[in-house]
Amino acid sequence: VSERLDEFQRIARFFAPLAGPGALGLTDDAAIMPGPPGTDYVLTTDTIVEGIDYFPDDPPAQVAQKLLRVNLSDLAAKGAAPVGYLLTTALPPSRGEDWLADFAAGLAADQARFGIMLLGGDSSATPGPPTLSVTAIGKVPAGEAVLRRGAKPGDLLCVSGTLGDAALGLAVLQGKLEAGAADRQFLADRYRLPQPRVALGQRLRGLAHAMIDISDGLVADAGHLADASGVGMDIEAVRLPLSDAARAAIARQPERLRAALAGGDDYELLFAAPPEARAALAALAQEQAVPLAAIGTVAAGAGGVRVRDAAGRIMSVPQGGYRHF
Amino acid sequence: VSERLDEFQRIARFFAPLAGPGALGLTDDAAIMPGPPGTDYVLTTDTIVEGIDYFPDDPPAQVAQKLLRVNLSDLAAKGAAPVGYLLTTALPPSRGEDWLADFAAGLAADQARFGIMLLGGDSSATPGPPTLSVTAIGKVPAGEAVLRRGAKPGDLLCVSGTLGDAALGLAVLQGKLEAGAADRQFLADRYRLPQPRVALGQRLRGLAHAMIDISDGLVADAGHLADASGVGMDIEAVRLPLSDAARAAIARQPERLRAALAGGDDYELLFAAPPEARAALAALAQEQAVPLAAIGTVAAGAGGVRVRDAAGRIMSVPQGGYRHF
Repeated sequence: VSERLDEFQRIARFFAPLAGPGALGLTDDAAIMPGPPGTDYVLTTDTIVEGIDYFPDDPPAQVAQKLLRVNLSDLAAKGAAPVGYLLTTALPPSRGEDWLADFAAGLAADQARFGIMLLGGDSSATPGPPTLSVTAIGKVPAGEAVLRRGAKPGDLLCVSGTLGDAALGLAVLQGKLEAGAADRQFLADRYRLPQPRVALGQRLRGLAHAMIDISDGLVADAGHLADASGVGMDIEAVRLPLSDAARAAIARQPERLRAALAGGDDYELLFAAPPEARAALAALAQEQAVPLAAIGTVAAGAGGVRVRDAAGRIMSVPQGGYRHF
Repeated sequence: VSERLDEFQRIARFFAPLAGPGALGLTDDAAIMPGPPGTDYVLTTDTIVEGIDYFPDDPPAQVAQKLLRVNLSDLAAKGAAPVGYLLTTALPPSRGEDWLADFAAGLAADQARFGIMLLGGDSSATPGPPTLSVTAIGKVPAGEAVLRRGAKPGDLLCVSGTLGDAALGLAVLQGKLEAGAADRQFLADRYRLPQPRVALGQRLRGLAHAMIDISDGLVADAGHLADASGVGMDIEAVRLPLSDAARAAIARQPERLRAALAGGDDYELLFAAPPEARAALAALAQEQAVPLAAIGTVAAGAGGVRVRDAAGRIMSVPQGGYRHF
């Protein structure tokens, strides 16, 4: 039986040695390149595969938006303003002009929403499932991109929005979670269509010491911040921000708290900020109409992520985390 | 029966309306973005799919090199110096660490050969065939990228290297072409591993009015130049530069000339240059040790591509051309 490495081990072993200085050792989900005077470009790329990252019967416009938005979320986590994107599509012959027209309409809607433009791309045929990639390009003032490294002991660990909705939404769509109609709709929408925190991310430049978007799950992504920063993270489970729908699901089945701790696809921003930033963060939350919650603290020493329950006991959280460099 | 558009019609209809100014209307295979003072970035992306663009039993290192090189060839056609790349891999579970180690070794070898570095990427799982994308980034002096538009009536239409080898090599690998052992090896190698004209492309800045790399086939790619430039192209079949191996195959089966006219994957440079550049091109061919042949001329008026045989008769050339934006 041959050895099986997880995705992060694979990247560390096979790809990190190939990385240039702009690649941030591949510990970040983006690369930085110098742009026009006073500007850095941020480049990120993400792929979605039908049957893995979305359902075959999802509306093509929504698939297009998910594809764009997972990339825009990576830019948001760098504090970058989105500029444009390159698109590659590998499509089976079954996807004809109707599919493409709807897909393109989804792109057009989000181009208008986020102020971005298509810069180029490539289209291929495939005998397999539709496989869609975007390389998104953003910009930041030179030297001001927020990285995964930089969290400091004593920092607050903060998160935007609410956690676990997307994982619960996936469970709804898979018929594995009972809920009221309104909650079902809310949770499913949170899974289907990420709302990248594009404006918030840019306003966090200068406040956040380190940042990541939550795509692999809170604990996994907090682990990425911790590892890149050489620190530990202490998270208090009772502080996790939950939507009413998630709170109701967890009240019925307490083990559903795992969705908030380890579920992916929320695309909220997780960041470390100094305690002095508390007032500024509260003002920013109000300005952006996005909840910002302090869920823990950054500890000295490379200690990984520790989650404690209300009684202060360390909880065991199986970590997932597959897709991202 | 629903309408079926070819790839170029699909791009024109669905994606061109989404393109921003840097995208060159998607008529070029690259986007241009302003870089540090005096510099433009050139961005291009290409995907290869197992079973479509390469054979399942091709060595992984060679697959990696093909993936990088088809992108470097696009940069070469812009006159750009390669800088780095982002990589996305969608792999089935059957591809384990041995495959990845060999794949990464191929990347490392070509990084050293072409002076480029990995900048970032993404890795996914897929139930389908391995699907591999690269977004390559190059740079040119500001405003000096060579585009597909710009060919002028009276220009010479020129090509580097030899044509048709890759298509004949594919026929060899498919058991459809008989040839001597040395010729078989030469032709198969030309199919398996492109040799992007990276140095030549940069030296053609200031000489070529318009340029493209031949990935879809000579006539299809000449058509892209013609359409983008609003001109016609007259090609003389007798002037096509052929390798000894291709010449031998065509001598045995004259219809094999189609490989040179319509076969893809040669990754040679096709460009329009003014007749005054003849001496400079001859000197450049010698300097770079790459044959440069004038195969026709650029005609006024949007007239597409006309190929004439030795007797001056217009030949009918079925055009292929699938993959590229």
